[in-house]
Amino acid sequence: MAEYWSTLDVDLHLSVDPASGRRVGLEHALREAIRDGRLGAGTRLPSTRTLAVELGLARGTVSAAYDQLVAEGHLVAVRGSGTHVAELAGQGVPGPSGLPSAPRSPDAPGARRSPDALGASGTLGLPGALGLPSAWVGEQPRSRAKPLGNNLLPGSPDLSHFPRAAWLRASRRAVNAAPNDAFGYGDPRGRVELRRALAEYLGRARGVLADPERIVIVSGAVQGLALLGQVLGGVVAMEDPYIPLFHDVVRSHGADVVPLPVDDDGARIDLLAGPDFDQVNTAVVTPSHQYPIGSTLHPARRHALVEWACEGRRLVVEDDYDGEFRYDRQPVGAVQGMAPERVGYLGTASKTLGPGIRLAWMVLPGHLVGPVTEAKRHADHQSEALGQLTLAEFIASHDYDRHVRAARLRYRRRRDLLAERLHTRAGRPAAGFALGGIAAGLHALVRLEPAGMTEAEVLKRASEFDLELEGLGGLWHTAPTNTLASSAPRPQGIVVGFGSPTEAAYPRALDALVRTLSWR
Amino acid sequence: MAEYWSTLDVDLHLSVDPASGRRVGLEHALREAIRDGRLGAGTRLPSTRTLAVELGLARGTVSAAYDQLVAEGHLVAVRGSGTHVAELAGQGVPGPSGLPSAPRSPDAPGARRSPDALGASGTLGLPGALGLPSAWVGEQPRSRAKPLGNNLLPGSPDLSHFPRAAWLRASRRAVNAAPNDAFGYGDPRGRVELRRALAEYLGRARGVLADPERIVIVSGAVQGLALLGQVLGGVVAMEDPYIPLFHDVVRSHGADVVPLPVDDDGARIDLLAGPDFDQVNTAVVTPSHQYPIGSTLHPARRHALVEWACEGRRLVVEDDYDGEFRYDRQPVGAVQGMAPERVGYLGTASKTLGPGIRLAWMVLPGHLVGPVTEAKRHADHQSEALGQLTLAEFIASHDYDRHVRAARLRYRRRRDLLAERLHTRAGRPAAGFALGGIAAGLHALVRLEPAGMTEAEVLKRASEFDLELEGLGGLWHTAPTNTLASSAPRPQGIVVGFGSPTEAAYPRALDALVRTLSWR
Repeated sequence: MAEYWSTLDVDLHLSVDPASGRRVGLEHALREAIRDGRLGAGTRLPSTRTLAVELGLARGTVSAAYDQLVAEGHLVAVRGSGTHVAELAGQGVPGPSGLPSAPRSPDAPGARRSPDALGASGTLGLPGALGLPSAWVGEQPRSRAKPLGNNLLPGSPDLSHFPRAAWLRASRRAVNAAPNDAFGYGDPRGRVELRRALAEYLGRARGVLADPERIVIVSGAVQGLALLGQVLGGVVAMEDPYIPLFHDVVRSHGADVVPLPVDDDGARIDLLAGPDFDQVNTAVVTPSHQYPIGSTLHPARRHALVEWACEGRRLVVEDDYDGEFRYDRQPVGAVQGMAPERVGYLGTASKTLGPGIRLAWMVLPGHLVGPVTEAKRHADHQSEALGQLTLAEFIASHDYDRHVRAARLRYRRRRDLLAERLHTRAGRPAAGFALGGIAAGLHALVRLEPAGMTEAEVLKRASEFDLELEGLGGLWHTAPTNTLASSAPRPQGIVVGFGSPTEAAYPRALDALVRTLSWR
Repeated sequence: MAEYWSTLDVDLHLSVDPASGRRVGLEHALREAIRDGRLGAGTRLPSTRTLAVELGLARGTVSAAYDQLVAEGHLVAVRGSGTHVAELAGQGVPGPSGLPSAPRSPDAPGARRSPDALGASGTLGLPGALGLPSAWVGEQPRSRAKPLGNNLLPGSPDLSHFPRAAWLRASRRAVNAAPNDAFGYGDPRGRVELRRALAEYLGRARGVLADPERIVIVSGAVQGLALLGQVLGGVVAMEDPYIPLFHDVVRSHGADVVPLPVDDDGARIDLLAGPDFDQVNTAVVTPSHQYPIGSTLHPARRHALVEWACEGRRLVVEDDYDGEFRYDRQPVGAVQGMAPERVGYLGTASKTLGPGIRLAWMVLPGHLVGPVTEAKRHADHQSEALGQLTLAEFIASHDYDRHVRAARLRYRRRRDLLAERLHTRAGRPAAGFALGGIAAGLHALVRLEPAGMTEAEVLKRASEFDLELEGLGGLWHTAPTNTLASSAPRPQGIVVGFGSPTEAAYPRALDALVRTLSWR
């Protein structure tokens, strides 16, 4: 554990763990300092050059760490004014054990919120117009893996890579070590062994402030949304397009749903202040990668979202379904870390291991733990214990990290092959489509341009090549004429799930996709 | 497979499988013949003597088989008129594959329903006044197994006997043999491997007509009731006393609940015709062993219950939580077998293996399969797959039968010891209590007589002996003055869970119980 001191606006104790690498260690240390209040809102950070000298790091390392924290919303970079701790980054943030955060440094300058400047800063390396689609559609019933034929449906990882042997070993260790009460009725929040392992993992890997006491293990994201819908009631804003089943789940559990339009910078947070949303008490969003469009929520919007929640004592539900699979940079940290009392975090093992094990988790604001636990007890008393103990063991033994790392490499190779095949063989720019959202997740979005084929034409042609694809069309909540978004025509597109096929089947499926799209 | 022919009122082909033993084989054959319509309602059966000669069996064997089928409601024994196939025994019963039953024999005489005569027939071997309490309270939150101290709380089997090694072996076979799609999204009804194994097991062990297509795997009985409450809505009659959590679960999922009184012959089915129940569309009952009173539903009431459901196109939900643990005779077959289109069957592995694995199952009337499947999809998409595959393998390999048989012997010994200790050391009849409900299940009911200690006194005294007990008082749905039952004072009692302690802890817990009850 190397320790660095920096005296600038404030005395800053950054404890950088070199085991994670320098940049990651610095990011982590800065994030921690912001969260526990040592770096108060508005605090101006040293220039990258100054801090690099101070810490004995390359300037590029510091710069990359700042960029990452800007992308997460912990810092704001204002042109001509340097980099500051963001207004809301530490607000109301309890320590890991639920203690209130230390008071802000009283001499910290007021924060400057300058979304326009931020939006123009261009430091985020955001991908192009189509952003980052993701891998969550699998919660849909239509995920219908077909053993024969070609399948590029989104929604599933490659199930042939479920780590059977490692999972069975972890299961044997877990079941043999389990106390007798593991086989009985237990805490509706789930096994404490798993809640502890997740608290550590989520803090480390996703920047989530996760107290085991505030974690509720659920049987998949569907159940998480069902319980929240039941507990919260009222009106819930959900992104549009999004997973239709999720919409239905929230509605069938007692809440109304209003669609929240998205664009290439993620959900249209600005609209939440408008009259169509004045009854909304909860917003369900996918900040890391909007599904299915694939955008990352713009840092200014992350702030606006948290502000909206804090001002109105509302709730943000952050669906972080595939945060592990980001290829071109470090994953964007969870919004939850910015305001854990106003953001409920929802994560899942469905994309890393497989949906069949039905293990997901919520990290909840303190006031929701009791009601959600009670709703869980009335839904199914608790989730199944042996799978929980197995996952706890799997995480603690670092099998989970190894598995995720291998999967990330595999899916990255597939993504590269997808891009290569579409660009070199069929990807003439004039061919009427553009590939987007390839920076993360288990899908990409083929956006169809007005001059090219329609969705229906692509899907029809795909079926001629015995290829199953998902069109964007089925993922809108509103009829085309009824959208709250601008009057611009809706994009047409195909959500390509490059995670689903087996390694052996993938090249053939790609061939079929290339042929499908090479029509004109 | 021995085959027997008997020509009496009708040609009767009874295919008795000698592998199950003669009596069981005959029972099975008669049940099948009634169900598939070969023995129509009202058909008079031969005398036991005649059939014994015809089949080459001992008369006692035939007589025992008739008694069993009378207890199940398949036959009625009318004094002076012999034994007949019951009116409703085969009504509307599809074959095992869901095909409609064969038409009744047109020349079968009209059935005679004679509940009074039946009630007086005395052939049922029903236990005494207190009947058969059972093991379902564990679905209550208050099931709080305590590692130290003495614990005779109901609601749990002995968790130290969870078959870890055998379960892990089955798990290894199941996970290694699983198709890849087992790790993905699947049928909300659950894995077909388990539904098939259960269909066979439930038919064989519980007399349930279970088509795999009509089985929905759920995560415990709580979830089964939650889904049914959501799908059915309206007003649900539930036994009183019963599990308070179950009451709450049904109510919190959209149905109203009215309490249905019980007595020593089970639920007061007669009251369902009364004005307090005219809005009721569903009755949730525990016919095999009422929980917590422990009575078995009287055969005449079984008939009345099925009639009530058929006449009004209503639903019976049969909670069969511990049908495997009957000590003094063959288990009473499920009511579901009498009218599978009007009875939903709910079974669980919570008492045979442990609640922690959260595996339960519903066998549903055809018209409910779709809506319940949809509700399950909106609740958590599907139950976890690996536990399902493991249980399927566990059943198919007959590990489940072996485990249940060993458990039955163990609990029977505990029951014997309980009876012996209470009767020989503290059980002076004048001591103010009576032990009942010891014929089945994992609990007994110590009914407190007015002359003796009150419930509160017993519980207070138990705590002095560091003994945890459950009083009957917390299991009533209605305030004492508000009950629909007669104006007789409510029984006071203690539900003794003899399943919960480990083998080593049980004698000491019994000592504490004996001391607790030896006050006067």
